[in-house]
Parts: sequence; structure tokens; C-alpha cells
Amino acid sequence: MTTGRLSGTVRIVGAGLLGTSVGLALRALGVDVVIEDSSPANEKLAIDYGAGRAASAEDSPNLIVVCVPPDVTGKVVAAELAANPHAVVTDVASVKASVLADLRARGVDLSRYVGSHPMAGRERGGAASGRADLFVSRVWVISANARSSDAAVKAVEDLALDLGAAPLRVAASEHDRAVAFVSHVPQIVSSLTAATLIDAAVEDVALAGQGIRDTTRIAASDPKLWLQILSANAGEISQVLKGLQGNLSALIEAL
Amino acid sequence: MTTGRLSGTVRIVGAGLLGTSVGLALRALGVDVVIEDSSPANEKLAIDYGAGRAASAEDSPNLIVVCVPPDVTGKVVAAELAANPHAVVTDVASVKASVLADLRARGVDLSRYVGSHPMAGRERGGAASGRADLFVSRVWVISANARSSDAAVKAVEDLALDLGAAPLRVAASEHDRAVAFVSHVPQIVSSLTAATLIDAAVEDVALAGQGIRDTTRIAASDPKLWLQILSANAGEISQVLKGLQGNLSALIEAL
Repeated sequence: MTTGRLSGTVRIVGAGLLGTSVGLALRALGVDVVIEDSSPANEKLAIDYGAGRAASAEDSPNLIVVCVPPDVTGKVVAAELAANPHAVVTDVASVKASVLADLRARGVDLSRYVGSHPMAGRERGGAASGRADLFVSRVWVISANARSSDAAVKAVEDLALDLGAAPLRVAASEHDRAVAFVSHVPQIVSSLTAATLIDAAVEDVALAGQGIRDTTRIAASDPKLWLQILSANAGEISQVLKGLQGNLSALIEAL
Repeated sequence: MTTGRLSGTVRIVGAGLLGTSVGLALRALGVDVVIEDSSPANEKLAIDYGAGRAASAEDSPNLIVVCVPPDVTGKVVAAELAANPHAVVTDVASVKASVLADLRARGVDLSRYVGSHPMAGRERGGAASGRADLFVSRVWVISANARSSDAAVKAVEDLALDLGAAPLRVAASEHDRAVAFVSHVPQIVSSLTAATLIDAAVEDVALAGQGIRDTTRIAASDPKLWLQILSANAGEISQVLKGLQGNLSALIEAL
């Protein structure tokens, strides 16, 4: 018996920070969760943590949540749609337009696909960082495509609501422009700030206070993941960065 | 009776965030504190908050803490040294070399002056933001000059210790290089990041998560104060910013 909106089995593909957190939260509601990862070690860790059970041949999931890196999201979503002909499939990748374009090119059944993106994360990845409350009070972007069925959109919105998040419908292209401003550029700037410290002496860093801690916290995030995100949203990000570059140059000039 | 290291009267000039916080913390230890501000309204507010009492003609402070904006710090320190011929005077300005140069040019008695800088602050200024615990567990830079007496250095270190901070001896020029890295450049970058949001739509900002909140928190700080700090440490800051600018340009190129 579940106490949330979702029923039946939810299948999670990818047992990193997000996949494990989704699993932990759904298990806390009593939902039957299957969690799978291409790395047996990650999968075992997530299962040991209580984020779900191993898959079995009899599974018939209603909803599949793909939580893999952006560069393989399209491929995995397509495989899940093909292998589970009645399930709704969503993904949680930080870029939405390139994933949708990839799926269009693959000619999949887009009526059962609804992209999504929970605006939540931590600077530490992996199953061990997973938390059942990661999505509480956070916005969860729902990017339906022109062919998404109403039932599919509702299933993904129910997922967000069950996890305590606030679903917000945003088209893929608008999502990508927005995250360039509120997520991708801040991430880059945090990393650039952290990189300036390479030239600082050990004694200099002893003076660090809360300001630099806050501005560089997210710089500790996974560089491989961010390389993929930046590549997949290069156009929108470049535009914002050029504005910042102009202001920076003017400031250096003024100093 | 006081429970700290300091005894006698401590005089605080400037009832902003730092001056008020110093006063609140010393009063909690039972120290006799006089607090003064060029604005009668600020002074009254700080006194009402419990950060000290109004000055009287009989006051004979042992220690004077100057907590005024950087551009008037040298002038106020010089006036306090002259008016109180036996007192030790310190200041809490975020730049140390320019204040010391200003005092040298004014020909004051440098044996009784020791610059300092608590690595603590908040993005909100003013007496109403003062907190007795602002300095707890924070580094408090002690920048003695070549003529500072041992007794003067000890008095300022005692102040830091009484306030729960960790005194750290750093020469003025080294301080200014270090804060360019750990305070001034992060401040600029936070402001530049916040400024990119001017071009964002209201709907874009709805997607904001904790990352952008953290990276832009300190951008809310007082712009007038920061203009003074940046001007007074322009050389060191420019050097760090140019490194950041080079990395940013390379990134935009790569995207």
C-alpha cells in the first residue's frame, strides 16, 4: 500500500545521487521500486541503502525514471520505451532540448515520454549522497513535448508531488535558456572563482570566510557531468557569459 | 567586573554592523563600552540595542576600535590617537596597506596603532544587523606595523580573543593580497553573477535553486562600501581578475 499518488512499480535507471534519492523517497511512501545501474557496485550500494530492489523478469513498471548522465540519456530513454511498451518514461537530465532532439531522431514513441528536471542537487554525487528529502520544496520542471499524452504528463507530475516537489511546466527550449541563467552560469562562475585560488598562497587561504565558501561550494561538483551539461547547452550559456565578460572587462578597466 | 582579558573602557567609533557587534560582544562580557557614530540616529540605535553607552567628558578609554568606512578610517584613527594620548587604537577596515600609508603620511604616533581586520561580516549592514557572536571562530587579522608596541599588539589580540575570534598576525601588504583572493574577487564575481540575471525573464528565475542563492548571497552587500574597498586594493584585485578573465575567455571560445 502506498500513501502517495503513484501506484504499481516504479523503475529507476541510474543509481547516482538523483536516482538513489528518488528511490529512497518513493520507498518511504511504500512504492515498489526497482533500481538498476550499469555499475553492479553502484546498484548494490543503492539497494543496500534502501533505494529499491533489484530488477526481476516479472517486473511491469508503470513509470520509469532515467537518471543517467546527459550524454547517454536519449539512448537509455529510447531503450526503456522499447523494452516497456506500456510504461511512461521520464528523465532528470539538466538539459532538455538536446535530449528531445535525440529522441526525435531515434523515432521513439514520444507520447509516453515526458522530460523533466528537478532543480535540486548536491555538490557530491553518487548513491552514498542520496537523500529522501532532496526534492522537498524544490521546483521540478516538467517538459512535455507536443506528443506527450495527458496521462504521461500526469504520471510525471504525480512523481514530483509524491517527492514533495513543486511541478512546473516549462517547454524544453525555455528550460534550457532558464537554467543557463540560474544554474549553468553560476556553476561556471563558481569554478572560475575556485580556480583563482590556485595562485593563492596557503597563508592567504587561512583568511577565508563564509563568502568564498558559499561562492565556491558548487565548484566541487563532478567535472565530467558538467562538461556534458555545458556542451549540451553551449549556445544559451555563451550568450549569458558574454554579458558577464563585458562587465568584467569594464571593471578591470576601471580598476 | 569583566570576565574577559580586556579591562577599563573600550571606545568604539562607528555604529555599523561591525562596531555594534563588537559592542554587543564586549557588553556581554561586562566591559564598559562607549559607542559613538557621526549619525546620532545610528548611535542611538546601537545604544538602544545594548552595544554600549554614550560618551562622556570623563571617559578615559584604554582601547579604541575604529569601525568606519575605509575611505575615512585613516582620518578617524589619527583623530582618536591625538585625542586619547594613552590609548591603543585599532581599526577593522577591509584594506590595511592604504590605511597604514595614510597614517604614515599624517605623521601619527604609530606605536599605539595596530591595524586589524576580522574576517567576518554579513550581507546586511547597520546597527540592526549587529550580533554578539559575529566573530566567534573567525580569523581576526592583526596587522602590526614596524613601530607598533608589544603592548598595543597584545591589546588588539586580547580584543579578538575576548570576542571568540582567532587572532592571526599578517603584515598589511600580505593581508591585502590574501583578501583579494578570498574576499574581494569572490565579492565581485558574486555581483557579476547576480548582474547576469538582469537579462533573465521572471519565469527563468522561478527555476532558481540553492546554487545560485549561495553564489549570489554576498552580492547584496553595500555597494558604496565595496566601491571603496575595490578602489583601495585595485592592484591586487586586478591581478586575480585578469587570471579569471583569461579562463573565462578560453571557456567562451571552447563553447
